[in-house]
Amino acid sequence: MAEQITPRAKDYSQWYIDVVLQSRLADYAPVKGCMVIRPRGYALWEKMRERLDVMFKETGHQNAYFPLLIPESFLRKEAEHVEGFSPELAVVTHAGGEKLEEPLVVRPTSETIIWAMYKKWIQSWRDLPLLINQWANVVRWEKRTRLFLRTTEFLWQEGHTAHATAEEAQEETLRILMVYKKFAEEYMALPVLAGIKSESEKFAGAVRTYAIEGLMQDRKALQAGTSHNLGQNFAKAFEVTFQTKEGGLDHVWATSWGVSTRLVGALIMAHSDDRGLVLPPALAPTQVALVPIFTNKNKTEVLGYAGKLAARLRAAHTVELFDDDQSSPGWKFAEAELSGIPVRIEVGPRDMEKGQVVLVRRDTLEKIPVPEKETESRVKSLLDDIQAGLFHRALAFRKENTRRIDDYEEFRGFMEGDGGFAESGWCGDAACEAKIKDQTKATIRVLPLGREPPEDRRCVCCGEQAKEIAVFAKSY
Amino acid sequence: MAEQITPRAKDYSQWYIDVVLQSRLADYAPVKGCMVIRPRGYALWEKMRERLDVMFKETGHQNAYFPLLIPESFLRKEAEHVEGFSPELAVVTHAGGEKLEEPLVVRPTSETIIWAMYKKWIQSWRDLPLLINQWANVVRWEKRTRLFLRTTEFLWQEGHTAHATAEEAQEETLRILMVYKKFAEEYMALPVLAGIKSESEKFAGAVRTYAIEGLMQDRKALQAGTSHNLGQNFAKAFEVTFQTKEGGLDHVWATSWGVSTRLVGALIMAHSDDRGLVLPPALAPTQVALVPIFTNKNKTEVLGYAGKLAARLRAAHTVELFDDDQSSPGWKFAEAELSGIPVRIEVGPRDMEKGQVVLVRRDTLEKIPVPEKETESRVKSLLDDIQAGLFHRALAFRKENTRRIDDYEEFRGFMEGDGGFAESGWCGDAACEAKIKDQTKATIRVLPLGREPPEDRRCVCCGEQAKEIAVFAKSY
Repeated sequence: MAEQITPRAKDYSQWYIDVVLQSRLADYAPVKGCMVIRPRGYALWEKMRERLDVMFKETGHQNAYFPLLIPESFLRKEAEHVEGFSPELAVVTHAGGEKLEEPLVVRPTSETIIWAMYKKWIQSWRDLPLLINQWANVVRWEKRTRLFLRTTEFLWQEGHTAHATAEEAQEETLRILMVYKKFAEEYMALPVLAGIKSESEKFAGAVRTYAIEGLMQDRKALQAGTSHNLGQNFAKAFEVTFQTKEGGLDHVWATSWGVSTRLVGALIMAHSDDRGLVLPPALAPTQVALVPIFTNKNKTEVLGYAGKLAARLRAAHTVELFDDDQSSPGWKFAEAELSGIPVRIEVGPRDMEKGQVVLVRRDTLEKIPVPEKETESRVKSLLDDIQAGLFHRALAFRKENTRRIDDYEEFRGFMEGDGGFAESGWCGDAACEAKIKDQTKATIRVLPLGREPPEDRRCVCCGEQAKEIAVFAKSY
Repeated sequence: MAEQITPRAKDYSQWYIDVVLQSRLADYAPVKGCMVIRPRGYALWEKMRERLDVMFKETGHQNAYFPLLIPESFLRKEAEHVEGFSPELAVVTHAGGEKLEEPLVVRPTSETIIWAMYKKWIQSWRDLPLLINQWANVVRWEKRTRLFLRTTEFLWQEGHTAHATAEEAQEETLRILMVYKKFAEEYMALPVLAGIKSESEKFAGAVRTYAIEGLMQDRKALQAGTSHNLGQNFAKAFEVTFQTKEGGLDHVWATSWGVSTRLVGALIMAHSDDRGLVLPPALAPTQVALVPIFTNKNKTEVLGYAGKLAARLRAAHTVELFDDDQSSPGWKFAEAELSGIPVRIEVGPRDMEKGQVVLVRRDTLEKIPVPEKETESRVKSLLDDIQAGLFHRALAFRKENTRRIDDYEEFRGFMEGDGGFAESGWCGDAACEAKIKDQTKATIRVLPLGREPPEDRRCVCCGEQAKEIAVFAKSY
């Protein structure tokens, strides 16, 4: 609290770290690249987890749990998969005081161990679809880490589904992509672009990777969730076949999809400000900060009044009552702001006389005196306003920072300057993609769904006819 | 389904494995000693987790998340702790393609990494108490494993609290012990003995370990939860001091406590029977199995009727409607029984004519025809009856199998025979405890709380004056 948060305009990266540490969402762990998720950060992740879990169950998925440690040989069964993950593996070589015959890797993702089990569980079309999700920790040995955004260990969910046909697998891949988009937009108040990844950016072992991408306040993109159509790659690697309805034998079709504690980082980067966290009411662990303003003389009276108000509000909201007499109202206001509590209510003796309370929005800092009797209804509508307001502010920001660019010099200038989303034609050639990345650090974030380029659209890099509309940006 | 469950009377161990595998709670993983928790088993664990989480939060605890990998040197800081856990560690020696400078152990429990963080977070009495819980996976390299009861990796919660005084730490230790007892008895319907462990059975690094112990159907005890008073051991090992209210400096006082997926094993062993699972309604993922009995002729009518009934029941209960026409009613009855669904409802054309439905209790298999209009109220009261009935049946079983024994020959005969809980005097000497274990395989499960032995009570082993009343049993 005593420390200053570095302003975003001065040093955006430092601002982010300051917000995470000072709001006590997380702390550095004494293990390279790892973090400790502190109670406030974990409460936020719990809220996300609860909402997502309901959405997964509504779409027919069940949770299960697979082992943390995977025999090294399993990863080698799918060629692209092992190539993609090998450099990032943490390996258990000794256990129970002895050297293991076969090393075990700490899961970087669970496709291999899960498909080894699916081989046991799937025999017939009657066993399909198999719609399983897992909430778990995974480890990827990352060189450069950043709290929440990229850590050696992180928490996530990973869905792994098995289907009888290619069509069903594709439907599932897109269904989940839309679940992620809905979650990002309705709960995180984060507008996202949903689309397909280019070949060079897809998941190691997937046929097609889809993703949602948000634009952060520094105009860099952040990938917030991915949904992969794995085709029959893992079924073939693990020999998972099933008897079809027609009596034939076919390999099973697969998807996998995940979001992680990275979402907490996205939430901060999308909405927070120089005073600290700004959280959408739908996910804020505490929705209302009630700050009574009292002196020793009127303490009992004011606290009694505030206590009753808190009890009324708790029927519908989570409320923190700042009733200690060790710290000043100013300190409490700053603490509530740092913590990102969406609505602050101030109530002092003068307010009590006037029969009013003062509501303060965390997002705009606007002060709104309201009649005390209307507190519940006004708080409720204010929380709704804030939720919608955050989304619309982020959407307006994205619109302002999205530009259609078909000229390469303009493209380079855009990426060297403020940056943002560049919507450009692309010939589909990996060479152009690589050249752009090399020269501007921008990558294709997504090929937005359902956007065929018109015939006269040209590749922003080589000028050949565009096969795709691609959204480019620098990214996390 | 097609397979037979080995009867308990024939082979209790095999019966347990058959129930777990055939009811699809879990499966063996292709990694030594590890298991896969399948959707039905995980749903059961989720229910337990939800209930316990509410109880922890009601007693002021917050969740957080600490790293999976712990520097090996951390474990060495507390002498008893490292001695206790060394033989069970899985060690990461390589990561990111390189040999690590310091090996990392996969957490067997998190005291060491958590107390390394508490050193950063705790400076003053104002920072205390610190009441944190973590839901996590842990790995202990076990030689002999058994599904749910003892697996190399398991899921658990581990609470880690820090206090300003020895008294507060002791209160916390007992508060959690009572939370565990309440959870076991009210939700799991499992009567447990709560007490203190002998020195030889306490947690490595604790001053005192408390536990709850249940009696399984084979008359072996199962430790279902432990709560440790850690004194200042970890605070001293990690140099965690705080400024006291009086301005002095003291080491912090600590507790830790946990329950694990082992509880799923306890639940099965306490209540299930030769037909499969028997689950208490408070934790059963599905509470009602609704089985319509129909032919091709009356299918539409019966299924329509059952569908409406299911919708009504779903207002208050979780219901599975067995409406497929691929399998027979008999198959569905067996499947509902195997799955441990507490109440089955049968409804066929003759029931419809009579305006009745037939309720079947999973625990007693009793059939109860009730007027269709009363279905909701009768199901509700039947679920309550089953919950209470399971507890009382288990309590009666424990009473029948608990004997006061002060004669050593009788003690040996008891343990060689059916076994159970032997309530005996104990001189307090570890040598007697070791001799008993060696000769009878029975160990002290707990020294029940608040039981002082009368002056004339003698040690069951050596005949010296008893210092304690001890409950002995063979155990899992």
